[in-house]
Order: sequence, then C-alpha cells, then structure tokens
Amino acid sequence: MTASGTLLHRDGGLLIGVGVGPGDPELMTLKAVRALEAADVVAHFAKAGNPSNARATAARYLKQGTREVRLLYPVTTEHPTSEAAYRTAIDRFFDDSAAQIAQDLAAGKTVAVLSEGDPLFFGSYMHIHIRLMSRFRTEVIPGVTAMSGCWSAAGLPIVQGDDVLTVLPGTLDHDALAERLKQNEPAVIMKLGRNLPKVRRALIESGRLDQAIYVERGTMHNERLLPLAEKTDDSAPYFAIVLVTNRWWQT
Amino acid sequence: MTASGTLLHRDGGLLIGVGVGPGDPELMTLKAVRALEAADVVAHFAKAGNPSNARATAARYLKQGTREVRLLYPVTTEHPTSEAAYRTAIDRFFDDSAAQIAQDLAAGKTVAVLSEGDPLFFGSYMHIHIRLMSRFRTEVIPGVTAMSGCWSAAGLPIVQGDDVLTVLPGTLDHDALAERLKQNEPAVIMKLGRNLPKVRRALIESGRLDQAIYVERGTMHNERLLPLAEKTDDSAPYFAIVLVTNRWWQT
Repeated sequence: MTASGTLLHRDGGLLIGVGVGPGDPELMTLKAVRALEAADVVAHFAKAGNPSNARATAARYLKQGTREVRLLYPVTTEHPTSEAAYRTAIDRFFDDSAAQIAQDLAAGKTVAVLSEGDPLFFGSYMHIHIRLMSRFRTEVIPGVTAMSGCWSAAGLPIVQGDDVLTVLPGTLDHDALAERLKQNEPAVIMKLGRNLPKVRRALIESGRLDQAIYVERGTMHNERLLPLAEKTDDSAPYFAIVLVTNRWWQT
Repeated sequence: MTASGTLLHRDGGLLIGVGVGPGDPELMTLKAVRALEAADVVAHFAKAGNPSNARATAARYLKQGTREVRLLYPVTTEHPTSEAAYRTAIDRFFDDSAAQIAQDLAAGKTVAVLSEGDPLFFGSYMHIHIRLMSRFRTEVIPGVTAMSGCWSAAGLPIVQGDDVLTVLPGTLDHDALAERLKQNEPAVIMKLGRNLPKVRRALIESGRLDQAIYVERGTMHNERLLPLAEKTDDSAPYFAIVLVTNRWWQT
C-alpha cells in the first residue's frame, strides 16, 4: 500500500493552469479545449454567491461527468495586497485550495485549474502553482489576456514600433497611478471595480482622461465600450479595463 | 456595372487580423482557426528569403486552394523607427501592402492577415488596419502574445497583486532601457535580435542581469530557455524575449 502510494505520488498527478481567454468561448485555444476534455478534475475560482467567469467561458467544453471543484474567495480581490487582514485571509484561502487540489494530484489525477485570461498574468492560478510546483508535475497553457481582448474589440493598436506599454493595477494608490500616467505612454489599467473613481481622478490629474477608453466584458456578448469621459457613473465590474493611448486619434 | 461595383464595395469585403499566438499551433484560438477556414485570401508578412513564422504556425489550418499573399518586408524591423530611411521604406511597404489587399476587399473577398502573437500588440497587421479601417469592415481576433507563451513555458508568475508590468522594445537606446530597468519592477523586453548586446549591458547597469530569463522560440518544438547570465553568445532571433523579475526566486 505504501509503495503503491509513493509510486502514484511520484509519477502520478498533473496540475494544469488553463487560460480560458477574455470571455468569448471561441477565444479559447485548441490546447485549452483539449486539456479540459482530458482532465479528471476541473477547478475554478469564484466570489461566493457569483458564478465563475472562467467556468462560464469554458462551460461548453466541459465533459459530462467531469468532477468540478469550486474555490470560493473569502474576500474581494479589489483590495490592495498591502492590507494585512486581506493578506492573511487570502493566503489561508490559497493554502487550503492548494491542499484540496493536492489530494487529487497525489491520487494520480489530472487537475485543470481555470483562469480568466492568462494564468500567470495576475491570475489566481499562480498561487496554486507556486504552492505545488515542487511536489507535482505542472503545465501552464497561456491564454489570450483580457487586455488583448479589449484593444481588439476597440480596434485600437495599443503599441507599435518603439512604444513602451505599462500595465497598471487599479489597486495602486492615486499618486502612484497619476505619476505613471504622466509619463504619457500607452497604458492599460486593470482591476477596476470599486477603484474606478480613483482611476478617473488619476487620469484627470495626468491630463489623459480624453485618451481613456473604458471596456467592460470585452469580447463577451454583452461587451460595452466607450470613452471613459462619456461614462457618467462610477460603477464597474472588477474585470473592466481602461486603455489609455493617443493612438486612437492618430489613425 | 457601376451600381454593382458600388454595392460590392459597400457591403463586400472583410479584413480580419488573425492572431496566431506564440508559435505552438495548438495555441491558436478556435476563432482564428475558423477565420482561416472561411477566408478567401490569407496574407502573411515575412522577411525576404525567410518563411513566415505566422504562416508556419497556421499551416495545418489553411484549406487547400486558399489564395495566399506574401508581404515581404523591404528592410529588417530591428531598427529604431526614428531612422528616417527606415521609416520611408517601411511606410511605402505598408502603403503598397494595404493597396494590394484593398483590391481583394473591394471585390468582396474576406482577407485574413496573419499576425504572430496578438495583431494589435506590436504586430505588422496594425499598419494595414489603420490604412483600411475607414473603407472596409474590419475584425481583429486577438491571440496569445509571445510574452504569455514565454512566461508560461518558464512557469514564471510574471505579475501578481499590485505589480506593475513594463513591456520594453529592445530597439530603445541603452540609456532608456537602463533607466526603466532600474525601477526594479517586472519587465518584458521584446524585439531582441541584434539588440541583445545592448539589452544585456542595460541589465548589467541596472543590476538586474541575474533576474533575466532568456526565451527563444517560446512554446515551439525547438524552444530554448535559460538564465540570460548563462547565455554565452550574443546571437538571438528577433522574436526572442527576455523576462525580468525577482519572482522566480521568491516562489
């Protein structure tokens, strides 16, 4: 029994981080679809009470009978990670999630963990990956990022030639955001949600509000896309994005 | 005849920018594959004398009998775009390429233009897009970027939480590169090729050579991945990438 258990542990399970792309199920890669077809277990993150966005994107490719594991965030992810209470709660959550997935891996299962966009680009999957990579085989299937989905939906060439692109999380404080935006280069601001009013003020302070495009649910059936200056309210989902560039008017 | 021609022109052709991803054909999206199956004409960029990387990635999905258009760069794209002779030659090339594609669009054809990675992220497709978007219907299918392919191949969480990501073209001059890298944040350096010695010096000056991972042909069958400090020569293809982060050692 012990020998068999050891054997299973050593050459058994496979952890796969699967990027499902920005939301349109057709923007999943062939490799991601095949991984879901082959997986014994499919795990996905969600806020309690909400459906998982990544699962909704991947739903049509899940086999009947595949076991699913729901990993429910204990707190919102819109807080700065510098808040101690947030860090404690979220670290424990990722520890527990990794331990749960490790049980299946130890039993030789292939476990696919869904990620919106790309797994290692601000994705929750990475927190499972770093906790398990020394114990189990891992594979990461990159996905189309939300930002690529958004600038493609807008038909907006975001960077070309010698441009520098800066990707800013909206969780940064106002001064940090404004300072970056004053560099006057193409920028993407992610993780909006309740950070939108602060992001808007930073864009105004840096003189770039008129270069900002707001994109909500980019590539999804209910996509919404407008100049941020024309958006009159401050409500935004966490996965909304602001694209900032002067290219829009140069074309 | 004139009325018919007008009609064709108004509701006829469709220009599609198709991101084919970082190189592994399995990392193409379902949407990209379907677009290639439906296209009347498939166009792709290449250096004279070289096969198109994007076409090689997409080859297995091209229908027999699809007409192909090769667009051959007149000069290398590794120059800074500030060089006047380079700008003149490349602008004329994109003008001519757009005019050639416009003929098929005017005749009501669907023309798919292949892009390595993502079409609007440093892709040549954008130069066709901006020249034709006011005359014809356009659609952009985002793709997995080369950088996502590279950090996934490395199993390297590139950004998390409040991290800021900076994407730098290797065509920037040494001082500009070194100044950015001194900010000590996660960075991606693209467009290596003959810029590699300069990039290496900028990494040394900013004290970050030991944080740099060199990835060549990421996700392809002949992928090569090693710490840049261990790469003893300075030859690199244009599509090699350097990932710079201290996360590698934190995990």
